[in-house]
Amino acid sequence: MTTVTHAHVQEAARRIAGHVLRTPVIEVSPGLVLKLELLQHSGSFKVRGAFNRMLSAGELPDSGVIAASGGNHGLAVAFAARALGVRAEIFVPEVTSPVKVAGLKALGAHITQTGAIYSEAADAAAKRAAETGALSVHAYDQAEVVAGQGTTGLELVEQTGGVDTVLVAVGGGGFAAGITLGTAGSSSASSGPRIVAVEPELIPTLHAARQAGEPVRVDVSGVGADALGASKIGGLAFEVLAGPRVESVLVPDEAIVAARRTLWERHRLAAEHAGAAAYAALLSGAYRPAEGERVAVVVCGSNTDPATLTTG
Amino acid sequence: MTTVTHAHVQEAARRIAGHVLRTPVIEVSPGLVLKLELLQHSGSFKVRGAFNRMLSAGELPDSGVIAASGGNHGLAVAFAARALGVRAEIFVPEVTSPVKVAGLKALGAHITQTGAIYSEAADAAAKRAAETGALSVHAYDQAEVVAGQGTTGLELVEQTGGVDTVLVAVGGGGFAAGITLGTAGSSSASSGPRIVAVEPELIPTLHAARQAGEPVRVDVSGVGADALGASKIGGLAFEVLAGPRVESVLVPDEAIVAARRTLWERHRLAAEHAGAAAYAALLSGAYRPAEGERVAVVVCGSNTDPATLTTG
Repeated sequence: MTTVTHAHVQEAARRIAGHVLRTPVIEVSPGLVLKLELLQHSGSFKVRGAFNRMLSAGELPDSGVIAASGGNHGLAVAFAARALGVRAEIFVPEVTSPVKVAGLKALGAHITQTGAIYSEAADAAAKRAAETGALSVHAYDQAEVVAGQGTTGLELVEQTGGVDTVLVAVGGGGFAAGITLGTAGSSSASSGPRIVAVEPELIPTLHAARQAGEPVRVDVSGVGADALGASKIGGLAFEVLAGPRVESVLVPDEAIVAARRTLWERHRLAAEHAGAAAYAALLSGAYRPAEGERVAVVVCGSNTDPATLTTG
Repeated sequence: MTTVTHAHVQEAARRIAGHVLRTPVIEVSPGLVLKLELLQHSGSFKVRGAFNRMLSAGELPDSGVIAASGGNHGLAVAFAARALGVRAEIFVPEVTSPVKVAGLKALGAHITQTGAIYSEAADAAAKRAAETGALSVHAYDQAEVVAGQGTTGLELVEQTGGVDTVLVAVGGGGFAAGITLGTAGSSSASSGPRIVAVEPELIPTLHAARQAGEPVRVDVSGVGADALGASKIGGLAFEVLAGPRVESVLVPDEAIVAARRTLWERHRLAAEHAGAAAYAALLSGAYRPAEGERVAVVVCGSNTDPATLTTG
């Protein structure tokens, strides 16, 4: 039994209902469904975990909430904090895209941009949280966050009646782990659809951890770095993603760029690179479904400059 | 009884199933649903009518199909023709956006760009059709086209369980008329949700026709001209849209521009101006729902340069 379970995801769904959107699915060809999580509030799935963490905490401190984030998690925490009327302090690494920083400002968050990569911003946020007593909302390695992200999987099963395979992007792993639990057939994570956990070749946190048998630090670079830029898979996520239902797949940056462009040209979806990574595995052949296999691809983020959809 | 009926829409739905996408709906706030028809094949609802017209015709002539279009209809006919393996010849007015012309070329259509506005391109296409014997697919004023577009309304009722009001944009009126029929409670178009037919102030084809009691010619200009640029409401559409279920509303171009921007910023939907017109009526207060009224807004086109989503 993993620390976070299917039952936790079900509780999260009840807790955050009305605060997050039930994002639609679209069957773009026979047996291929896209889950349009990029249309979620704040432009990514991250609000699910943020609301679940905050609403699980009881009364929130006057110092509010604090988070470190490559961008999407910060936007989500800022969105949820505004919705719940509390202060949000967000630490972001310097690599964060200007679009996301502007979005954070628009949501009224207090922003500190520090550190070259995510883990340095996270260290700074942890130090600050210890000083102020603000509730820390982790980007992926907290039980309430994993459970919240997993509500995407619950919805997917309800909306499709079940699929054979779900392709999902992995950064710190909270989303993929949550979806693995959310789509599980019972309280055990070992039954349910195959989960294809897709990572950029340049940020193989899960792939390296599965080879090593434990979370290990990896280098972070490439087009996905601003949203999938954790340098180590989360411990809670790895408990789930080390299991036999999960297949780890890597895709090169060129495939992610091509997939993002195809999502726009063919389906009019404005995904960010990280949001297109799962689709890249299908489009590039890194994952090849069998004849008749019913596949869902989670398109998970849209915090991008739309001017780059046709050029980058 | 109108020429096109609810039963024709039901027949169309059976005929075009598998050729068009069942576009999703998303409830963005309690009681407010967006129908995401902008995610449809070819970037707008127009493929529904195009497929229904072509599939109703029996065997298609060697000269294929011919259409005149401000762009979206042309793209749709080209898409459907490619899918069915027939030749498509498309006449477009010079106002047509480069994005749409490029899209037509990519679909393998034979393109003639002629005339300042839609009606001049339409005259040229009619002349050419008489010479070649190609099947003419009208942008709005054919029974099969109106019935095909109406399948959007059938889906909307199935997906939502019914709403009180549907907001939809009007150009030549085929889409709004089809939706009025498709959402009708019975074979009579007089029962069903209220239809709010939204037009740019600068292209009031329906508004002017309702005042005159018959279709009349209007001037065509403004941000919606490349997609809502019919200069006269279609006769078949007017039979339906003159009825008491339909409320005619005008919106200024500024409201359309603001709505398009909000669709991107708040909901990550990349709509073209015409596709945002219906939402503009809600956002600007041109239509104000009552307390508790369940409203659906059809977001109907996405053939736009995404670089302009944040600037124009």
